[in-house]
Amino acid sequence: MEFAYDARTEQLRGELTEFLEQHVLPAEAVHAEQVAAAGDPWARPPVLAELKAEARRRGLWNLFLPDPRFGAGLTNLQYAPLAELTGRSPHLAPEAVNCAAPDTGNMELLAEFGSPQQRQRWLTPLLEGEIRSAFCMTEPEVASSDATNIATRITRDGDQYVVNGRKWWSSGAMDPACEIFIVMGKTDPDADRHKQQSMILVPRDTPGVTVRRGLHVFGYSDGPHGGHAEIDFTDVRVPADNLIGAEGTGFAIAQARLGPGRIHHCMRLVGMAERALELLCRRVLDRVAFGRPLAEQGVVREWIAESRVRIEQARLLVLKTAWLMDTVGNKGAHAEIQAIKIATPAMAEWVIDKAIQAYGGAGVSQDTPLAALWAQARTLRLADGPDEVHRASLAKRELRRWSTTT
Amino acid sequence: MEFAYDARTEQLRGELTEFLEQHVLPAEAVHAEQVAAAGDPWARPPVLAELKAEARRRGLWNLFLPDPRFGAGLTNLQYAPLAELTGRSPHLAPEAVNCAAPDTGNMELLAEFGSPQQRQRWLTPLLEGEIRSAFCMTEPEVASSDATNIATRITRDGDQYVVNGRKWWSSGAMDPACEIFIVMGKTDPDADRHKQQSMILVPRDTPGVTVRRGLHVFGYSDGPHGGHAEIDFTDVRVPADNLIGAEGTGFAIAQARLGPGRIHHCMRLVGMAERALELLCRRVLDRVAFGRPLAEQGVVREWIAESRVRIEQARLLVLKTAWLMDTVGNKGAHAEIQAIKIATPAMAEWVIDKAIQAYGGAGVSQDTPLAALWAQARTLRLADGPDEVHRASLAKRELRRWSTTT
Amino acid sequence: MEFAYDARTEQLRGELTEFLEQHVLPAEAVHAEQVAAAGDPWARPPVLAELKAEARRRGLWNLFLPDPRFGAGLTNLQYAPLAELTGRSPHLAPEAVNCAAPDTGNMELLAEFGSPQQRQRWLTPLLEGEIRSAFCMTEPEVASSDATNIATRITRDGDQYVVNGRKWWSSGAMDPACEIFIVMGKTDPDADRHKQQSMILVPRDTPGVTVRRGLHVFGYSDGPHGGHAEIDFTDVRVPADNLIGAEGTGFAIAQARLGPGRIHHCMRLVGMAERALELLCRRVLDRVAFGRPLAEQGVVREWIAESRVRIEQARLLVLKTAWLMDTVGNKGAHAEIQAIKIATPAMAEWVIDKAIQAYGGAGVSQDTPLAALWAQARTLRLADGPDEVHRASLAKRELRRWSTTT
Amino acid sequence: MEFAYDARTEQLRGELTEFLEQHVLPAEAVHAEQVAAAGDPWARPPVLAELKAEARRRGLWNLFLPDPRFGAGLTNLQYAPLAELTGRSPHLAPEAVNCAAPDTGNMELLAEFGSPQQRQRWLTPLLEGEIRSAFCMTEPEVASSDATNIATRITRDGDQYVVNGRKWWSSGAMDPACEIFIVMGKTDPDADRHKQQSMILVPRDTPGVTVRRGLHVFGYSDGPHGGHAEIDFTDVRVPADNLIGAEGTGFAIAQARLGPGRIHHCMRLVGMAERALELLCRRVLDRVAFGRPLAEQGVVREWIAESRVRIEQARLLVLKTAWLMDTVGNKGAHAEIQAIKIATPAMAEWVIDKAIQAYGGAGVSQDTPLAALWAQARTLRLADGPDEVHRASLAKRELRRWSTTT
Repeated sequence: MEFAYDARTEQLRGELTEFLEQHVLPAEAVHAEQVAAAGDPWARPPVLAELKAEARRRGLWNLFLPDPRFGAGLTNLQYAPLAELTGRSPHLAPEAVNCAAPDTGNMELLAEFGSPQQRQRWLTPLLEGEIRSAFCMTEPEVASSDATNIATRITRDGDQYVVNGRKWWSSGAMDPACEIFIVMGKTDPDADRHKQQSMILVPRDTPGVTVRRGLHVFGYSDGPHGGHAEIDFTDVRVPADNLIGAEGTGFAIAQARLGPGRIHHCMRLVGMAERALELLCRRVLDRVAFGRPLAEQGVVREWIAESRVRIEQARLLVLKTAWLMDTVGNKGAHAEIQAIKIATPAMAEWVIDKAIQAYGGAGVSQDTPLAALWAQARTLRLADGPDEVHRASLAKRELRRWSTTT
Repeated sequence: MEFAYDARTEQLRGELTEFLEQHVLPAEAVHAEQVAAAGDPWARPPVLAELKAEARRRGLWNLFLPDPRFGAGLTNLQYAPLAELTGRSPHLAPEAVNCAAPDTGNMELLAEFGSPQQRQRWLTPLLEGEIRSAFCMTEPEVASSDATNIATRITRDGDQYVVNGRKWWSSGAMDPACEIFIVMGKTDPDADRHKQQSMILVPRDTPGVTVRRGLHVFGYSDGPHGGHAEIDFTDVRVPADNLIGAEGTGFAIAQARLGPGRIHHCMRLVGMAERALELLCRRVLDRVAFGRPLAEQGVVREWIAESRVRIEQARLLVLKTAWLMDTVGNKGAHAEIQAIKIATPAMAEWVIDKAIQAYGGAGVSQDTPLAALWAQARTLRLADGPDEVHRASLAKRELRRWSTTT
Repeated sequence: MEFAYDARTEQLRGELTEFLEQHVLPAEAVHAEQVAAAGDPWARPPVLAELKAEARRRGLWNLFLPDPRFGAGLTNLQYAPLAELTGRSPHLAPEAVNCAAPDTGNMELLAEFGSPQQRQRWLTPLLEGEIRSAFCMTEPEVASSDATNIATRITRDGDQYVVNGRKWWSSGAMDPACEIFIVMGKTDPDADRHKQQSMILVPRDTPGVTVRRGLHVFGYSDGPHGGHAEIDFTDVRVPADNLIGAEGTGFAIAQARLGPGRIHHCMRLVGMAERALELLCRRVLDRVAFGRPLAEQGVVREWIAESRVRIEQARLLVLKTAWLMDTVGNKGAHAEIQAIKIATPAMAEWVIDKAIQAYGGAGVSQDTPLAALWAQARTLRLADGPDEVHRASLAKRELRRWSTTT
Repeated sequence: MEFAYDARTEQLRGELTEFLEQHVLPAEAVHAEQVAAAGDPWARPPVLAELKAEARRRGLWNLFLPDPRFGAGLTNLQYAPLAELTGRSPHLAPEAVNCAAPDTGNMELLAEFGSPQQRQRWLTPLLEGEIRSAFCMTEPEVASSDATNIATRITRDGDQYVVNGRKWWSSGAMDPACEIFIVMGKTDPDADRHKQQSMILVPRDTPGVTVRRGLHVFGYSDGPHGGHAEIDFTDVRVPADNLIGAEGTGFAIAQARLGPGRIHHCMRLVGMAERALELLCRRVLDRVAFGRPLAEQGVVREWIAESRVRIEQARLLVLKTAWLMDTVGNKGAHAEIQAIKIATPAMAEWVIDKAIQAYGGAGVSQDTPLAALWAQARTLRLADGPDEVHRASLAKRELRRWSTTT
């Protein structure tokens, strides 16, 4: 047992921290201004392209991809502290280093399950950061934590598949650079529970695809993340080659995709909480009320100490989960992935809430990143399956240990 | 001791409920569409004027004003359950019945402290619902829970006063119908701690007044509430008659205004929580996951039961506070006003959070009112003084009981 | 609606407070010494008899009994604030005024359902405070929140009933003055779910009755409450006349008994919380650490303020519940009784915990009443049905409102 | 970074688990019976000596002592998971393997700061498990988290020191085998704040030493831990050689002692929580209410999942702290020691509380170890400095990071 990061990780942490401090954090205000000036929440402000160019120049690119043919070749354990750092500026940093959801999951998916042609056509420009992508799984009418509920149909018709259904919370799809959708639907509703689903590539400009609207998250359109779209697929025809893997593998692919996706979210949440705690500390050192800095008030100190204690615990569990994924695989780390999915958003929400309270009005407004950070943390408490589903599953596993030994 | 509402209250509750169900709740979607169509968050959509006309026709108007010369002549205890009902649709109902903050507080202030001319000029159109008003107290640079921090200056110059300063969180001021600002500033920074401040009426169109921007609340522009403005006052000159009361009375007037303002917020928060609980129940009765309605899940039932328990307790404390204000005055009810200011936003936040979780993605989006309700409840945990200030003060009072009897 | 106590209540509160301060509180230390000297946790120290005599002399006796033929003839709403006061010294005050559980519930039961002979034989000495009684319902082997689980059998045999079974948590039964047990068992296991049970009077000295041991609550033997016994009933024969009411009425009688029993507990819990808050305040005013009294620390002030806020809310809900029991009956107040059973123990537990923390080691020791108060509050979170059962039931009721209106 | 235990740790974990399952857990009931039969909470029941002999035979002895001259020579990181295991049976297992507080801390202290004679006379029999010891630091009259408050005086008089003062919470001192007290007092009240204190060895049988009484912890006398004594030292004379180290080093020695002491407590708390979670799972798999096992209820599953998530996080933070102590020293791990002192008792308290709730009456009684586990966890929230002190200190450190970089 050993709690120090390895040398490569420390090296990259240093480089990434420098990039964040010199380029990304100063770009936050510029980005907000450029978006405001564009008058369009989905605009891609020029500063983003500049950040991406700079990151690439520095070799801080595709850090998330363990496959050295395509990405940095880091283990999950090495990537975790880097992803955490990008969480400090979650609207800019992940995309700046081409490590933004949902592209990361989609690239992993194409790298692992895509055909050579699919990889050539879509993975390459994604790895280059030239286009973006969306993952269309959740549906408005059904509880999507239960995959058998999926209503979208993918029907074979000659050398084509026909897609019909409605998706929502397709994150990134409002971004004009988002050119490709990975759509989950049922190819065989009568098959076994987890063999009914398939995944298929649907270019955004295919006839029958209608991006209806962007969903808000609290009052945010989440432009920097490419928004969250509601999309209609009406008799959308794509070549049969667009199917990812074989028919009936959709559920398995989705499961493979979700593990890393969840841990990436959790890593960034730790960074979001660190950012909030830094902002909280800076504020209370600076702000005077009733004759002394807020930092001298006992209640504020409790917030700070408790934040530190919670962050440390959550980070360690995320890191251990990353290590398990590296050593025993995503499946072997299943319980821990659930555990961090439960623990980390709630932790981040708590810490950010305290920072908001310390800022008062500024904390809920656009003058600090706190309210937007909070909205993201809160949303992650229900995205990819609400806590309750993960808790029920985790408990079942725990109970199994003792039921067999009674 | 007696826990039933009196006959007049019951009568008005019935009428108001009917108005809400027949007119206000159905207007929520219309309102959202009209705002979206206007492309301007500060637009006043026509449906609002229709609601106001209908409310007035029904005699549901100015219910908040205890002075029968100006309003409905209800006691706080009678008004409380009515304000609660308007909280069920907090973006429309309060204004529909001309009981929306900050106009309510401003009308009370003018009714109590305004000169006949001031009342004639500003109170009358406010009572008619023809114009709106803002209350400019909070400043960006200082902790405004401590009134001695106020930096805005109001300087006598002949028969005029000159106002200089910057305010923010001036709620309602983004509304184009908002014609009058009540501004708090210091007329004598060298006077006793609580005699330094005065209040003055500043028409919006006075030269030197610049409404700089609207502040967001968790991404929301809060258009239905008239937004929250940041306003510069630069050498703004108004007639000396615009001063409310005498010089040095600003703090006392603010205190008088805050008590009722806080209890109104709390009343509405109880209604907001009731709305969320209703939405939660409807959702879980309807939504099926893993083969059975969410309503059958134990965790969901805990949320519902706990919500009911928390709402009931908070409501009773709000009602008792209203009764105290009626019987021993706002000052006599000071501790209880602090208590409800601490208890009610936190209660509402908790209940709404559970409803959001039950709705999943829809809960954080624009498809339910929940996320906006939540943002409002959260903001009220820090508006009008953060919880921490109220708790410190309440504790001091409690400690005093025992320190004198030791 | 009106939040002031009526004149009779205020009068009795004054008298009871005087009795508490002059006699009961000073007797706490004496009681502890006498118990320690006796070397027997079940000893009845002489100070208790003295307190009872004094209470009786002052007319503070049987306050709980609404039936004026037997008791003080107070409504629940009048009794509530008095029961609260006895909660300030919960090990002595309730018995001192002959209002201690489980005698109160047993006296109510006998007054309402007992035959004239049963009342003559057992109610009279209980009303006089000469003997004590126990209520034997809970069983060790089954979840007793579900009454159909009861395994004890009551079998008719000629002009006798034969009782067989094991009970535990028979509170009061370790007290040597406890002469009579009211035992719940099944007379007809094949009858309808709620017609299987009956109640029967079993004198403690009946052959076949074995009091096996006293159960501890945390480390306490709960001597002042008469302990909590585990009792075997083996072929215990009592005259058929000992049956309370008709065969099959046991469940209904138990339900009738539980409502008032629960609210009495809740009333006293409010008083326990008040006592803890007083002790907390006195401690922090007195105790100096790092150069200033604990009372000046922000965290401590948060505890105090939050305690006050929670106590006030819980008390109001208890009072409203009492009022409902008086006006619409125990059944009509069912939901509210559940609500206070959920809210009040948790509230008291929270407040007492903070007081313990302020006292440090003294808080968990025998040098303050806090640890014992805490253990009692914690136990009430699971006695008479754990919170979870009450929450599930309360939620069902709430859901019913909306399922019928969908 | 690496999350697997090393080979020696795994080996010892296996051996210790076997010893626990075969000997210690079965001895719990025996121990309770022997104590009950003795009629003296401070009796040392024979089963304890048998366990110690067995442990020694197995080489499971003095595992805590890093100095290979005296103990097992394990690092903190290696010892942590073993201490955790002993926490599963905290009343028996730690002493069985001669790793019980306060002896552990006292042995470390003597090994590090004792003179050869002191080691010979007292360390040797302690290492052999022949005698026990107490650490007398806390005083009843002052807040002992502030060491300058200490009132006990140690005065040089010729070749003797004279000790005067009153101590309490001297854990272990009620044990008849406890022969030696390490007493902290002031030798020079006028010296620098942290140079005033010294430590001295006082044999229990020295004239002037009076063990006044045992303090209770939530009704428990804590016999298995040797109780917690209140002790008077009145003109107690011991040879000058009994001073540990030089005059004025008492504070430094206490600090050195507290770090390991705190982490040992935290390690065991993790084990206590694991024991409670096991008991909870076994109970709910077994117990049926309303027709199905409690294990199928959603609320119970939330408890289990949340318990698992909290335990994992706390354990990792404890382990990282142990690693820091090994790599950068106790001082370098100061913040983390505070963090686990805050996090772990609260975590254990939460988990144990849920297990208690699942057991109902049995959970608070002597029929499960849960209530006693809870009392211990709760007490550790205030022992060795209440949470509030640690939080304030941790916050100060956090704030320092940002105040220097502003």
